[in-house]
Amino acid sequence: MRHTSTTSLRVVIVGGGFGGLYAARALGNQPVSVTLIDRRNFHLFQPLLYQVATGGLSPGDIASPLRAVLKKYANITVLMGTVTDIDAEKKRLVVHPPNAAPAEFISYDHLIIATGVQHHYFGNDHWRTVAPGLKTIEDALAIRRRIFLAFEKAEWTSDPARRLPLTTFVIVGGGPTGVELAGALGELTRFTLRRDFRNIQPPEARIVLVEAGERILPTYPAALSQKARKALERLGVEVLTGNMVTHIDDTGVQLRAASGETEIPSRTVLWAAGVTASSAAHWLAQKTGTPQDRAGRLMVQPDLSLPHHPEISVIGDLAHFRHQGNAPLPGTAPVAMQQGKYVARKILNSLRDKPTPPFRYRHKGNLAVIGRNQAVADFGTLQFSGFPAWLMWVFVHIAYLVEYDNKALVLFQWAVDYLTRKKGARLITEVGKPEEGKN
Amino acid sequence: MRHTSTTSLRVVIVGGGFGGLYAARALGNQPVSVTLIDRRNFHLFQPLLYQVATGGLSPGDIASPLRAVLKKYANITVLMGTVTDIDAEKKRLVVHPPNAAPAEFISYDHLIIATGVQHHYFGNDHWRTVAPGLKTIEDALAIRRRIFLAFEKAEWTSDPARRLPLTTFVIVGGGPTGVELAGALGELTRFTLRRDFRNIQPPEARIVLVEAGERILPTYPAALSQKARKALERLGVEVLTGNMVTHIDDTGVQLRAASGETEIPSRTVLWAAGVTASSAAHWLAQKTGTPQDRAGRLMVQPDLSLPHHPEISVIGDLAHFRHQGNAPLPGTAPVAMQQGKYVARKILNSLRDKPTPPFRYRHKGNLAVIGRNQAVADFGTLQFSGFPAWLMWVFVHIAYLVEYDNKALVLFQWAVDYLTRKKGARLITEVGKPEEGKN
Repeated sequence: MRHTSTTSLRVVIVGGGFGGLYAARALGNQPVSVTLIDRRNFHLFQPLLYQVATGGLSPGDIASPLRAVLKKYANITVLMGTVTDIDAEKKRLVVHPPNAAPAEFISYDHLIIATGVQHHYFGNDHWRTVAPGLKTIEDALAIRRRIFLAFEKAEWTSDPARRLPLTTFVIVGGGPTGVELAGALGELTRFTLRRDFRNIQPPEARIVLVEAGERILPTYPAALSQKARKALERLGVEVLTGNMVTHIDDTGVQLRAASGETEIPSRTVLWAAGVTASSAAHWLAQKTGTPQDRAGRLMVQPDLSLPHHPEISVIGDLAHFRHQGNAPLPGTAPVAMQQGKYVARKILNSLRDKPTPPFRYRHKGNLAVIGRNQAVADFGTLQFSGFPAWLMWVFVHIAYLVEYDNKALVLFQWAVDYLTRKKGARLITEVGKPEEGKN
Repeated sequence: MRHTSTTSLRVVIVGGGFGGLYAARALGNQPVSVTLIDRRNFHLFQPLLYQVATGGLSPGDIASPLRAVLKKYANITVLMGTVTDIDAEKKRLVVHPPNAAPAEFISYDHLIIATGVQHHYFGNDHWRTVAPGLKTIEDALAIRRRIFLAFEKAEWTSDPARRLPLTTFVIVGGGPTGVELAGALGELTRFTLRRDFRNIQPPEARIVLVEAGERILPTYPAALSQKARKALERLGVEVLTGNMVTHIDDTGVQLRAASGETEIPSRTVLWAAGVTASSAAHWLAQKTGTPQDRAGRLMVQPDLSLPHHPEISVIGDLAHFRHQGNAPLPGTAPVAMQQGKYVARKILNSLRDKPTPPFRYRHKGNLAVIGRNQAVADFGTLQFSGFPAWLMWVFVHIAYLVEYDNKALVLFQWAVDYLTRKKGARLITEVGKPEEGKN
């Protein structure tokens, strides 16, 4: 096919997220032939997706065309397509070009799978339509549409029984995504929309963050969880820990706690609770005999390869990697980036018959943002919150954004937002899409 | 209902485009009670929509939330809803709140209709799915998706018979929108995408601008039309004047000229050829007995009111206004803005029993942009092109953008684009939407 056959090692990377992109960059202009395949034509800066969902940034601000990011590496070919199967014997993938062209085979000498995770509704897949998650640009736009449409509808009605569910927002899941969404909604309703309506008072909107565990941000030290909770409550967010969601439909959610059951009437429920391995895990496990953990992630070797398949590496959220015998590494961008660079180095070492020691994760710290001037930072012995943590969060994110794209725009927009608390990207588009249901 | 009944004059404005928005602003903080109704929650800066369609700007960059723009005027209420009918006797409108709530009546003392125009396929409505027009954000995103998807598909195929239609783009209509789209496509393929692909050469893409009349930009002086044509050709655009489109499907277009018929195989055909009055014209004409012109526009009185209905004004693209006995005013933003301000002044004068002279359009000039440093400007006796016209175009557009919103972002993005020729907002979203057809 169109791949110029060279004598150099053919590396195929599936997925252009943090793992795949950093692997590709580390292989750029090296003596290997790289093909990066992704279903989308852009890399998504997922840590800021919640800002698209709440109208602070536009999709284009956090999406970088993969071709543009990688154009300077002549040895890298980017292909938009969906990988649906593998022939591990013949070392080739089944790839579908965009929109229904016939499938093609793509051969590899080394394969890197970095397709990440998707939402998981714990066996309640029918919740998907009423409680959208936040993984893709389309997810973020659907959430943005729901949030702003709810206020538009509320402005039309004076009946509290109809208005209250419209101005009640329930976020399920107290991890970083849920906390960031709840905080952004608090800022949106308390500040941005304060004077925008004539018949409703956006600052009176009810925002509920539901967490089944005993505290939010469970991977953080308890003291920081407590600080995050207080910061959210100052923004008017109700934090309900120890509450399990037992039912969701388009009228609201039902919760079960030790103290009993509650019902929260709400027309806007957002899902930030669980993830499961992307579909690649299934065919990869099946065709290579690799064991999976309960979330479907593939159990990788110390060098991130699959058992009996040293030529296949799995990185990022899709990999279950027991770090120095401890719990598996979390599905975060720093883990994926380090793993992407590691696998690239491993491949380049193999060209020179040089051994590569097992992957070792260097933990740099955790950051979660709640709102303007409000974040929590956990750097092991060093833990802090409030403005210093927020400032650190801003700088870390800008550094990453600038690293592979001129996203100075985001910086500029943040500066404007900071000064004015405006959120300019709150347009409602695609109204009446099928997934809206009766919302 | 929710409208606080006051003793002040109730002005209802339908449509938040240039006409409606400028009418609303001129009535802001005046002794009238204003309700602005729009199907969308944002004002769209349509003159830059072609930049969203070609990946230069994000939707949020050219859309301003109506509530945010008008929040400082306590006497203005913004409602998101669709107006479907009028009771001209009882002076009230039938309005549907977003998403299927029951319709409500909204009463007015003075009504301003500014709902604009929509695409017109001259009796070939089946062309709508294969040749999208450019009026809404969704239109622009659909066009953006088609353009970038075509290149992604072309990268997969080495068969020229399949590749050529994918890298051929046909724009139907040589007015300002068609010229701007063709120019932006020329820049995109010649510069932005130049090194992005490995198997295809984007600069070799074929871009065809088809115009039925004898020259493009027919409302401009002939010398400027010629300059625009030359500038487009320098960007690699083929300009086919005197060619009528007789057929469009998802394999390409058929053209008829004096010299015979041609067929252009193309998978991406864009429509910039014709407009017709929005649906409001139908019920308004029917219920008030107002005559319409061939495009469905309402024939308005010298003060922009409807015959026998001095309390109803029609402004902007929807109005057919014979200026000083000449041809009707064109459907441009300056006409709509001046008419919006005029009607507001007329209403405020009527409160003081002060007469208002008939509407008089002050023509400031026409500007059309082709590409970087390339535009044409027609200011009557003063006509110029090239860099000075382009600079003028940039300043005029920024001045308007800044006037009602802090769209310094656009300025900043333009500066970046100008220096780097990058186009950052070229993500493909919503792949596989129903309207895509087999494309």
